[in-house]
Amino acid sequence: MNEQARATGAKTDFSAGAAYNDGVYVPAAQASIPIMDWGFGKSDVTYDVVHVRDGAFFRLDRHLERFERSMAGLRMSLPHARAGIASILIECVRLSGLRDAYVAMITTRGMPAPGMPRKPSLMRNRFHAYAIPWIDVIPEDVQEHGAHLIIAKTLRIPPESVDPTIKNFHWGDLVRAMFEAEDAGADIAILLDADGYVTEGPGFNVFMVKDGEVISPDRGALEGITRGTVFDLCDELGVPWRIAPVTAEDFRDADEIFAATTAGGVMPASRIDGRILCNDRPGPISVRLKEKK
Amino acid sequence: MNEQARATGAKTDFSAGAAYNDGVYVPAAQASIPIMDWGFGKSDVTYDVVHVRDGAFFRLDRHLERFERSMAGLRMSLPHARAGIASILIECVRLSGLRDAYVAMITTRGMPAPGMPRKPSLMRNRFHAYAIPWIDVIPEDVQEHGAHLIIAKTLRIPPESVDPTIKNFHWGDLVRAMFEAEDAGADIAILLDADGYVTEGPGFNVFMVKDGEVISPDRGALEGITRGTVFDLCDELGVPWRIAPVTAEDFRDADEIFAATTAGGVMPASRIDGRILCNDRPGPISVRLKEKK
Repeated sequence: MNEQARATGAKTDFSAGAAYNDGVYVPAAQASIPIMDWGFGKSDVTYDVVHVRDGAFFRLDRHLERFERSMAGLRMSLPHARAGIASILIECVRLSGLRDAYVAMITTRGMPAPGMPRKPSLMRNRFHAYAIPWIDVIPEDVQEHGAHLIIAKTLRIPPESVDPTIKNFHWGDLVRAMFEAEDAGADIAILLDADGYVTEGPGFNVFMVKDGEVISPDRGALEGITRGTVFDLCDELGVPWRIAPVTAEDFRDADEIFAATTAGGVMPASRIDGRILCNDRPGPISVRLKEKK
Repeated sequence: MNEQARATGAKTDFSAGAAYNDGVYVPAAQASIPIMDWGFGKSDVTYDVVHVRDGAFFRLDRHLERFERSMAGLRMSLPHARAGIASILIECVRLSGLRDAYVAMITTRGMPAPGMPRKPSLMRNRFHAYAIPWIDVIPEDVQEHGAHLIIAKTLRIPPESVDPTIKNFHWGDLVRAMFEAEDAGADIAILLDADGYVTEGPGFNVFMVKDGEVISPDRGALEGITRGTVFDLCDELGVPWRIAPVTAEDFRDADEIFAATTAGGVMPASRIDGRILCNDRPGPISVRLKEKK
């Protein structure tokens, strides 16, 4: 129970989502980050997201493991051991009462204590988490007819600048690409790297199907846990798959295209840069994977 | 006066800094950003910083103009006209009682309203500002003996991904470089672009002196207002200057090196990648510029 609830004797309403905010449980909408935290002012932060479906976490251990790897990569650490983090996530879900939830865990750098040198290595890192209702990132009608996709002019931030295997909030390139999609009347954008290879889109991994085989780009993209799940589904359906370099040309010549994300599962596309795929409908392999999921 | 002050009748203490937090004035340490604001979760935010010295803003108009350009570049807008923003900044300084202050203005994207599509173009942008005591980014002793500087292995985020002329919080590359400096026992790091040209350091523009001329890199760096001030000082001192491509080699061969930032003025360096410049002391032209400032 948070301070306000204790003071008024009222029961806090967590039904729209519950958060753990550097030590205190609050309704998700009230969770906040100090403006002075480098997690905001320098986007010096990492996170991970895990799905709760029918009351159960999906592959929580793998997400916690990746989250710990991300923190180590940024030289962040928490007093909580892995079990401690898990119990905070579980408490967020319990407080919210949600059976299907989008659960995020976040560590920010923190801020210099008064008089402390401005060295990130000296700051106390802060932990936050929240569980909120499930939201499909792609609207239902787009899911139905298939997403219209463009290849953005904006290039993905390169690994030599920001390591894409450490989940981060550096979305400047991705938001810019979202505006490009909106301007083009498309639903989503995917981004190339400086060498012209396909990487990922805002919050999702991408896949193409060519001659019955599923191919996903080998660079610039997060080692998506959902991507791994897609390959598991391919194995179950007997569909061959591989991770390989994919150029913009390859992508435009694909038989089918789909995206996959923790937040939305498999999302088939029906157009790329205006070119119609599969009679302007989600392709057959994409649909089998989507329904399997 | 904020809610808490009104409720208790107590006078809020703004002496450690005052903030405007999306409509409410609060002590700077209490200012926060909702975790759900894209300004945090996607670093979808722009800002500017202006210096108050001896009670007066330094070139406020130029900073406000740049801030408005940055917002336009990200397709953000505020209900406040320029005079409205200025009056909020002035109120932050007045509340704090500070005669010398670091004053920041920040616009975040905001967040989707319930049921709203997740389109950044539809969100209400939020304005925040704060005035806090002046802090030199480089400690006094480093200022004295000259900073030890390294050229980081991490590359600056390229303009094709995130536009560096729009002030942003994408500091993943810069913080990574700060850790490189710390590991090398150096004070500060500067970053190259993918083609091997010098760009900038974490929060500062860089300059080299060669054969009596001041040269600052032509790429990858914010169009620094402080950089403009350095060129004005050069003009006053009769020191020639230019903006030009600068390679890592050029930089390592420089006679002098210095950095300049709104937060710290001119900061001379005395070593680069271990090489000693000017007998391990700030160079003569750097010192004249620093003292002039």
